[in-house]
Amino acid sequence: MSDSNLMGKITSLAKRRGFVFQSSEIYGGAGSVWDFGPLGNELKRNVKEQWWNSMVHRRDDVEGLDSSILMNPKVWEASGHLDGFTDPLVECSNCHRRFRTDTPGVDEDQCPTCGKTEVFGDPRMFNLMFKTFMGPVEDEASTVFLRPETAQGAYVNFINVHNSARQKVPFGIAQIGKAFRNEITPGNFIFRTREFEQMEMQFFVEPGTDDEWFEYWLSARLEWSHSLGIAEKKLRVHEHGKDELAHYAKKAVDIEYEFPFGWQEFEGVHSRTDFDLKRHQEHSGKRLEYIDPAGNKRFLPYVVETAVGVERTVLIALLDAYTEENVDGVERVFLSLDPRIAPTKVAVFPLMKKEGLPELADGLYEDLRNAAIPSFCDMSGSIGRRYRRQDEAGTPWCVTVDKQTLEDGTVTIRDRDSLNQERIAMEMVCKWVSDHLLKV
Amino acid sequence: MSDSNLMGKITSLAKRRGFVFQSSEIYGGAGSVWDFGPLGNELKRNVKEQWWNSMVHRRDDVEGLDSSILMNPKVWEASGHLDGFTDPLVECSNCHRRFRTDTPGVDEDQCPTCGKTEVFGDPRMFNLMFKTFMGPVEDEASTVFLRPETAQGAYVNFINVHNSARQKVPFGIAQIGKAFRNEITPGNFIFRTREFEQMEMQFFVEPGTDDEWFEYWLSARLEWSHSLGIAEKKLRVHEHGKDELAHYAKKAVDIEYEFPFGWQEFEGVHSRTDFDLKRHQEHSGKRLEYIDPAGNKRFLPYVVETAVGVERTVLIALLDAYTEENVDGVERVFLSLDPRIAPTKVAVFPLMKKEGLPELADGLYEDLRNAAIPSFCDMSGSIGRRYRRQDEAGTPWCVTVDKQTLEDGTVTIRDRDSLNQERIAMEMVCKWVSDHLLKV
Repeated sequence: MSDSNLMGKITSLAKRRGFVFQSSEIYGGAGSVWDFGPLGNELKRNVKEQWWNSMVHRRDDVEGLDSSILMNPKVWEASGHLDGFTDPLVECSNCHRRFRTDTPGVDEDQCPTCGKTEVFGDPRMFNLMFKTFMGPVEDEASTVFLRPETAQGAYVNFINVHNSARQKVPFGIAQIGKAFRNEITPGNFIFRTREFEQMEMQFFVEPGTDDEWFEYWLSARLEWSHSLGIAEKKLRVHEHGKDELAHYAKKAVDIEYEFPFGWQEFEGVHSRTDFDLKRHQEHSGKRLEYIDPAGNKRFLPYVVETAVGVERTVLIALLDAYTEENVDGVERVFLSLDPRIAPTKVAVFPLMKKEGLPELADGLYEDLRNAAIPSFCDMSGSIGRRYRRQDEAGTPWCVTVDKQTLEDGTVTIRDRDSLNQERIAMEMVCKWVSDHLLKV
Repeated sequence: MSDSNLMGKITSLAKRRGFVFQSSEIYGGAGSVWDFGPLGNELKRNVKEQWWNSMVHRRDDVEGLDSSILMNPKVWEASGHLDGFTDPLVECSNCHRRFRTDTPGVDEDQCPTCGKTEVFGDPRMFNLMFKTFMGPVEDEASTVFLRPETAQGAYVNFINVHNSARQKVPFGIAQIGKAFRNEITPGNFIFRTREFEQMEMQFFVEPGTDDEWFEYWLSARLEWSHSLGIAEKKLRVHEHGKDELAHYAKKAVDIEYEFPFGWQEFEGVHSRTDFDLKRHQEHSGKRLEYIDPAGNKRFLPYVVETAVGVERTVLIALLDAYTEENVDGVERVFLSLDPRIAPTKVAVFPLMKKEGLPELADGLYEDLRNAAIPSFCDMSGSIGRRYRRQDEAGTPWCVTVDKQTLEDGTVTIRDRDSLNQERIAMEMVCKWVSDHLLKV
C-alpha cells in the first residue's frame, strides 16, 4: 500500500497487539531501544529460524557460531573499528548539543536545537562503539567495547571452527547475535536502533574466487527475501560507490526495500577480501592461514559477508504484510504474514459460550499446544471482533467450534487472506495445520 | 563419574570438538567470556528450545517477551540494583589489586597477589553492573547499564503484556536473553561468567496464593531438569537462609547440581512478592495494579520467579553426559546427551571410499539436510575413528553405508549408548530419526 501514515499505523498496531513496545516505557523510554512483546518475540524467533535453516541446517558448507558480545579490546584495534568506526560531529558553542555535519540546519551553521547561528567549530570524530569497564577497576586498561558487528567473532575463531568442524575452504561461519552502535540519529521505529540483532554469515574462499562467490551469495540472499513472501517490486539492489564503501570492503551491494520513508538498506553483501584475517594475524601474531589438505596451497582466505538485521527484517515483514481492505462496506486490517513466520498459527473460537462449545474449543487448543503449534483460544466478544483481532495479529487460520461440531465433529477453518472457510474434522486440525505449514 | 579431573577433560573435549572456545583466544582471551562453536551453539539452541517449548508453547498461561539489554537507568534505581547489587571489596595498599573479603589470604590480611601483610583497609562497595554511555556525550546523565538480570524487562512491561495478550492473573512472562555481571571471581569454565544468557520466567499471582505457586514452580522446574536426562542423584534442593536472601526475596530455593567442584546452584526459584512492581510503581508514577475483570479486585500481583542460566545448563548437560567406558579392552569416551539436545542427530559414513558408497552416503546426508535434521557426513579415516569422533560429539545415531547397501538398500544404524546396531532401509532413515526424536 502507498500510505504516508503507514509507519504510524504499524507502530500503533505493533503496540496494541503486543509486537513491539518502547523499552522502559513507564520511565519515558530509553534512547531508541525497543522491546518485543509476545507476538513480536515469536515473529523474531520465526525469522531467525528461517534464516538459520536456510543458512546452516540445510547446507553442508556453513557452520554455526555464538561468540560473545564482550571481546578482548585488541580485536577492535585490529579490525579498524577503534580508529575508523566514527562519525564526525560538531558541537554547538551555545547549548552544547552535538550533531552530525549533515543534519539540516548545521550545514547553514545554525543550531537545530537552540536556533543560534555561527555556533559550530570544526567537527570532531566520535566513535560509535559503546564502551564499558571489565574487572574491579575503571580505567583505560579495563576498557572493553560492546561489539558493533558479530563478524569479528567469526574471524578470530576461524582456525578453531575450521579445525573442530573439519571444514575445507570454501566454507562459512554463520551467527545470530546482538550488536550495539551508539548512533547519533537512530529512528524510524525499529529501522535503526542502538541495540539490535544481526544475522551474519562470513564465507571464506580462495582468493580469486571471491567475485564469483559474491554473485552467488547476492542471489541466494535475494532469493531468501522472496521466500519470506516480500513483494519483489519493493526490492532492488544498490551497489556502493567508492565513497560509500566501508573501510574493509572491496565491493558492497545492498539489497534495498522501499520503506514509507524511501529506499533503504535491508541486507548487505560485502566483499571484505582478507582485510580482517590479515589484520588479526598481524595484531595477534597467530597464523590464520588456511592450508589446503590436498595441494598444500597456503593462503589467507578472502571473505564474502552477508549481513541482515533481525529487527529490520521484522519491520519489513510487518510493513509488507499490512493490508487494509473493504469487504462489503466493512473495513478490515490484516497482516498477510507468511504462515511460517506468523507468531500464532491457529486461533480457536467457540461460537457461543454455552452447550459445551467452550470445552470443545479448549480441548482442541490443548491438542495444538501439545503438538507445540503456537496457538490461541479466544472465548469472548463477538465472532467478528475475534476475527479482527487475529487478522491484526497475522494469524493465518481461525477455527470455529459451532453447533454442527456437536453433531458431526467438524469445525470451520477460515483463511486470513482469502476469507475462504472450509469444514474439516476437528481431530484433523493439528495435521491440517502442520501439513499447510510444510507446504508454504 | 567421580573424577577430580573431570572439569579439565570437559574443557579440553569442548574445545577439540567445537563446543566452547575461549573468547578472543588469539589475543589471550577476554576476562572469563566464552564463545560457543558449531556444536556448542547447537546444544545451546536445543536447550533453549526445550525450555521455551515447556514454558511457553505448551502452556496457555505464560507469554514470551524479548526486552532490551540497555534500559532506562531509572529501572535500576527502582529495582534496588544501583544501591544493592554490590560486593564489598578491599584494595591492597601495596599492589592495588582488589579482592572480595572472603578470598583466602585476605581474611588473614595477607595479599594473595603480592604476599604483603597488613595491606587491607575497610572494604568498599563495588557495583556488579557494567556501565556504559548512550548518546553523544560521556557524562553522568548519559550513563546506562547492561542489565544484570532479564527479570526487570518483564516487570516494566507487565501492563503492556497483560493488555495486549489479554491474560488474566495468574499468568507468567518468560524471557531468554543475555545478562551481564562484572563478577570479581568468575570461573570454573562456563559455570560463572561475566556475560551469560538467562532463561527466566516471572509468574504474577494474587497475594496469598504465592506460597502455593512457589511449590508448583519448584516442582515443575525439578521435573524439567529430570526431563533433560540429568541424573536425579546429582540434583538436590537448598533453601536460602535469611542471610543468603537477595534484597527482593521473601523465599528462595536453589535446585543444586553436584559439580566436580561441589554442590552449586543450577536453577533458582524465588518468591519476590510485590517488591519490584511496587518500586516501579513508586518510581515511575504509573499504575501497575492488576484489576480483576470479574470481581473488581485490584491488587499489585506477587511474583514467583524461575531463573536458570543457559551456559550453566550446557555445562551440566556436558558433565552429566560425559562417560568413559572400556569395551573389550578399548577405552571409549562418549557424551550420552539426550537426543533432543544433542547438537548432531545423525552421522553418515560410507564404509569405504569406493564402489559408489560415498555417493550413496552423500545422498542420504542431503535427504537429512532437506528434512532440516542436523547431521554430518564423515568420509575419511577408519570407521572406528569416525565412531569415536561422533561419540565425543554426543551424536546419538551413526549410519553406515556398506556393500550390503548396494545389494538390498539397507544401512546399519548404531546406537551411541548401547552400541547396538540394526539394519534398516536407507530410505527410512529420516523417518526413523524423526520418530525416535519424538519418542525420547
